[in-house]
Amino acid sequence: MFEKPIGMRDTLPHLYTLKKQARNTVSSVIEGYGYEFLETPTLEYYETVGESSAILDQQLFKLMDQQGHTLVLRPDMTSPIARLAASKLYTGGYPLRLAYDTNVFRAQQREGGRPAEFEQVGVELIGDKSSSADAEVITLMIHSLLRSGLSEFTVAIGHIGFIDALFTDVLGNESRVSEIKRFLYEKNYVGYREHVKSLPLSSIDQDRLLSILQLRGQGDILQKASQLVQNDQAREAVEQLQQLWNALEAHGVTSYVKLDVNLVPHMSYYTGILFEGYSSKVGYPICSGGRYDQLLERFERPADATGFAIRLDYLLEALGGTGSEAKHECVIFSQERRTAAIECANKLRQQGKSVVLQDITGVRDIDAFTTKFNEVTYFIGTAGKEKQQ
Amino acid sequence: MFEKPIGMRDTLPHLYTLKKQARNTVSSVIEGYGYEFLETPTLEYYETVGESSAILDQQLFKLMDQQGHTLVLRPDMTSPIARLAASKLYTGGYPLRLAYDTNVFRAQQREGGRPAEFEQVGVELIGDKSSSADAEVITLMIHSLLRSGLSEFTVAIGHIGFIDALFTDVLGNESRVSEIKRFLYEKNYVGYREHVKSLPLSSIDQDRLLSILQLRGQGDILQKASQLVQNDQAREAVEQLQQLWNALEAHGVTSYVKLDVNLVPHMSYYTGILFEGYSSKVGYPICSGGRYDQLLERFERPADATGFAIRLDYLLEALGGTGSEAKHECVIFSQERRTAAIECANKLRQQGKSVVLQDITGVRDIDAFTTKFNEVTYFIGTAGKEKQQ
Repeated sequence: MFEKPIGMRDTLPHLYTLKKQARNTVSSVIEGYGYEFLETPTLEYYETVGESSAILDQQLFKLMDQQGHTLVLRPDMTSPIARLAASKLYTGGYPLRLAYDTNVFRAQQREGGRPAEFEQVGVELIGDKSSSADAEVITLMIHSLLRSGLSEFTVAIGHIGFIDALFTDVLGNESRVSEIKRFLYEKNYVGYREHVKSLPLSSIDQDRLLSILQLRGQGDILQKASQLVQNDQAREAVEQLQQLWNALEAHGVTSYVKLDVNLVPHMSYYTGILFEGYSSKVGYPICSGGRYDQLLERFERPADATGFAIRLDYLLEALGGTGSEAKHECVIFSQERRTAAIECANKLRQQGKSVVLQDITGVRDIDAFTTKFNEVTYFIGTAGKEKQQ
Repeated sequence: MFEKPIGMRDTLPHLYTLKKQARNTVSSVIEGYGYEFLETPTLEYYETVGESSAILDQQLFKLMDQQGHTLVLRPDMTSPIARLAASKLYTGGYPLRLAYDTNVFRAQQREGGRPAEFEQVGVELIGDKSSSADAEVITLMIHSLLRSGLSEFTVAIGHIGFIDALFTDVLGNESRVSEIKRFLYEKNYVGYREHVKSLPLSSIDQDRLLSILQLRGQGDILQKASQLVQNDQAREAVEQLQQLWNALEAHGVTSYVKLDVNLVPHMSYYTGILFEGYSSKVGYPICSGGRYDQLLERFERPADATGFAIRLDYLLEALGGTGSEAKHECVIFSQERRTAAIECANKLRQQGKSVVLQDITGVRDIDAFTTKFNEVTYFIGTAGKEKQQ
């Protein structure tokens, strides 16, 4: 009877405090970059936001409103922000720098799996197609992680255009391309190798497909990538990655970055540069993002855009749950000395302390109650008659 | 196509900033009183939380999960916190002081009405039946409003036990009692008068019912109230109100308070003292609360409890939308001078400023883009060759 729906979690006080610290740190870094925070409703029309969200339909929480429309609990914030950027917030003064900090929802199939509701802090930079925009959001994401206290992490950066160009060049048709991409999306590199070897391809083409598994590293891998496939789409992708790399060098963040052309996104709306951040302590990406130049079109106002989202729960996991726990003091009083007790508590509060003021008649088990406090001050009985034990 | 479901709203950057300021202020006052914040899921089982929430069924957003259970979007936080206080958080070390800051959901029937999703900041003080506990939550609510910048407001305090005792004494049966209570719940005092006059009562009893409309004011009204109805339930209610009043005097907050025995709650779980806070600028209570000594029983661990919730949207309305707007600076660069621009932006950010760093190639209309900034610094062209206009 007192259970919660599948994938739903409580955040108890200790974790709440850690989450709040991380949230506030990340938010203030984002505000420092001139991004403006906003909030959108938890519920949206399925036709408006659910369909363009790129989250699998079975992962959407759907309900009907009293007028018979299908609503969804927002599965991500990129589509709702695109809705706003294309309507109320559109001023022509692009680029727009927007940010959010909110819970999103993804229905889960079984207990003990991933959370069905989790908090994301993220940004969207809308109306800027320069590589500087990609470099800015990646740099901002890296600075956010660093300031939250995370020091060991890697941001892998790929380009959907490059991998598509190579696969299309070698494999020809779309169904074969999406078949092979699944191995990379699932990061199943053993399966990828076996799949490539099973394909009826020349050994040169097999080598081309296998060689991308080595295309991970610093800016120098781009030279090799450019030799692997030489049509326009691939050239443009490599050129964008090169410009991005140069900009990231100027931002001084390349030590946190590796280029990885094997990166394939689970969000179908990415159109170019994409990236994921990892910590060795967490099994999933703690943050991700990329360029989505076609999403705004669906809201009838085409614009290039890029952004990232940090998953606060995974970030906390990577941080290892360290952080100062709030310490409370306690002032216990009996009725006669209430006024003195109130004065004492308010004085301590003015010093920034967290103080519980407790009427002794409201406590059944005083020993159990007082164990949780740092310090307990008593105002009990007639003043001047107390005797210290 | 780009509409939002009925009652759903976007919070754009200016309002977001004001909301965040108010939320942070109220939260820090609550933390100062030693309350611990926590978070519960947006979705709960209907049987667990929906049924005990005291929100009308037609106001619940309901959906089915993939296992066929009915889920609800939480309509309030009192029931979810009661669920936790009775299970994971139960240590025997009562009283527990818990707090939350979260969105709750109430389905609306028509567009242009009240919001269907809104943010509440509130507290629950569980396991303390002393009047000091009631006084504490009311004082904390008043201090929260004051610190958020609100100076003109009134907290009306009533007692469900008193009004029930009087009505039962005069009217006898329950259906007549709930009929007459509706007028008070709707604050329809003209209707109440007419209704009383239409009842087949002695003129003495009619006068008793009419006289409560005057029972509003400071502590001295309790003398009159005690003469109006003299059974045990009424005596206990008046006694509790008297003790509460004494405690509120000790806290020095009675200038913000008036006793009002006509107060009837819309939440059915209140069992004793209850209260509502008003500002003359807002048509609805901006905050409310009371004692609910029977709710914890539903989670199989009986405990007395009291609490309040502040509606952040109404508080902002009462504050009149004033507050400092965030001011941004802008640094615009061309590629050659990127490094100098990054250095400049980072320096300003370290001073706590909010700085947009913009590649000039990413802006289509530079005039439209720059209007929104306080100050714009350009790093454009080869250094040393620029000429100021």
